[in-house]
Amino acid sequence: MMTIIQRSPKEQRERIRNGFDTVPTTGMCAGYTQANLVILPKEYAFDFLLFANRNPKPCPIVDVMEPGQIVSNIADPTSNICTDIGKYRIYKKGELIEEVEDITPYWRDDFVSFLIGCSYTFENALENAGIEMLFRTAGNNVAMYKTNIPCYQAGIFHGPLVVSMRPVPKRKLVTAVEVTAKFIHTHGAPIHIGDPSKIGIEDITKPSYGDFTPYDEEEYVPVFWACGVTPQEVAKASKPEIMITHTPGYMFISDRKESL
Amino acid sequence: MMTIIQRSPKEQRERIRNGFDTVPTTGMCAGYTQANLVILPKEYAFDFLLFANRNPKPCPIVDVMEPGQIVSNIADPTSNICTDIGKYRIYKKGELIEEVEDITPYWRDDFVSFLIGCSYTFENALENAGIEMLFRTAGNNVAMYKTNIPCYQAGIFHGPLVVSMRPVPKRKLVTAVEVTAKFIHTHGAPIHIGDPSKIGIEDITKPSYGDFTPYDEEEYVPVFWACGVTPQEVAKASKPEIMITHTPGYMFISDRKESL
Repeated sequence: MMTIIQRSPKEQRERIRNGFDTVPTTGMCAGYTQANLVILPKEYAFDFLLFANRNPKPCPIVDVMEPGQIVSNIADPTSNICTDIGKYRIYKKGELIEEVEDITPYWRDDFVSFLIGCSYTFENALENAGIEMLFRTAGNNVAMYKTNIPCYQAGIFHGPLVVSMRPVPKRKLVTAVEVTAKFIHTHGAPIHIGDPSKIGIEDITKPSYGDFTPYDEEEYVPVFWACGVTPQEVAKASKPEIMITHTPGYMFISDRKESL
Repeated sequence: MMTIIQRSPKEQRERIRNGFDTVPTTGMCAGYTQANLVILPKEYAFDFLLFANRNPKPCPIVDVMEPGQIVSNIADPTSNICTDIGKYRIYKKGELIEEVEDITPYWRDDFVSFLIGCSYTFENALENAGIEMLFRTAGNNVAMYKTNIPCYQAGIFHGPLVVSMRPVPKRKLVTAVEVTAKFIHTHGAPIHIGDPSKIGIEDITKPSYGDFTPYDEEEYVPVFWACGVTPQEVAKASKPEIMITHTPGYMFISDRKESL
């Protein structure tokens, strides 16, 4: 297994802010909540918060910041939502127009930032239960897929569920459900076990986001969890004027201890 | 114990709509979720939904309706949020100006209705666990109190927590916590057991809302649950242009089965 240097969330955010460790954050700051980011103008904030409330599996809210606020309520006062993530994506009217490392030039006083729990948070508990994160061992990003499962609509926001996939040894399937079901703020229990075609995934080797890491099909079964990248597919379908997100895999690392 | 005729939620709503059973809804439609009501103009909807998200114990959201929508998503299509509650309260700039049985004349296309889980939902489970609802036996409304515990602010919304109180036999205190902790959509575990002065209640015989029902202090301890009347104290403190609520104790009875 790869060894990742364990820093405090504050120190890790500083390194990312200064251009170091610009890789997916899986394995960093074990024991702390990692979060997906969605930034929208205030005019869309009610619809999006309602979308998150109606779709708590992909969009478990861990923080909502006031309009214009750049310091998250679950990070220390030196943190900055514009710089503390390795890579950001700018969507305009549903199109990904740019990937940047600093969104300060785009910032507006009416921007509301939503932090959404990430499944990286429970990977530590899965590993402690004897379920290896094969993608991490291979130095890859986790594999994420667009599915054919629609989210519940709220206002303008609609679109398909995105899932992350981790192969689990056949003997460990119940354990994987039991362990992750407790993490209600970071996606909880899986939404599907096994046959990817049942949720509209045609080719498991071609994820929509992240990397496919090969596994032995005799020994492992693919297990799918709701994913906080879902709002990016929702942006494509719903076409808000502007939505800024993290780049899948490059998460915001909060000071909040993972909690069950 | 008083016997209350058990009707389907649809039938019970029809009776209330037609002016029958205009009493507190405790004990009606056992097994179904009852809900507090908050109606606000769309301009306040994001702030209030965020307030509810930040204060899930008093404000567990069970439905949010689109602007102008009068049929709840958790009731049949004949239901009408303007008429299906026995009594409504109209707050303007934080002042209670009127109590009415039908809010149709006040309705606006930009009104967003929030339904918030009510502790009446778990009373059936408490009674099954051998904890009598003394207030109901006495034909009273439950006692509710303003406390000195501040809610978390969101936008303009701030104010003190309101609690409902039920006396619990001393031998049954753990049971009361265990049973209600499972009802996460209807306030969950109590927020306080015992000495009312610890949460700012000076005189237990004088509730802020509802009725005080005497109990034997040798045998019973007062137990306090977060209450969906909290938004009414929040209205008084935050003074939105208009907020329409139910009258405490007169709840919306939904078609949703109580769920754990």
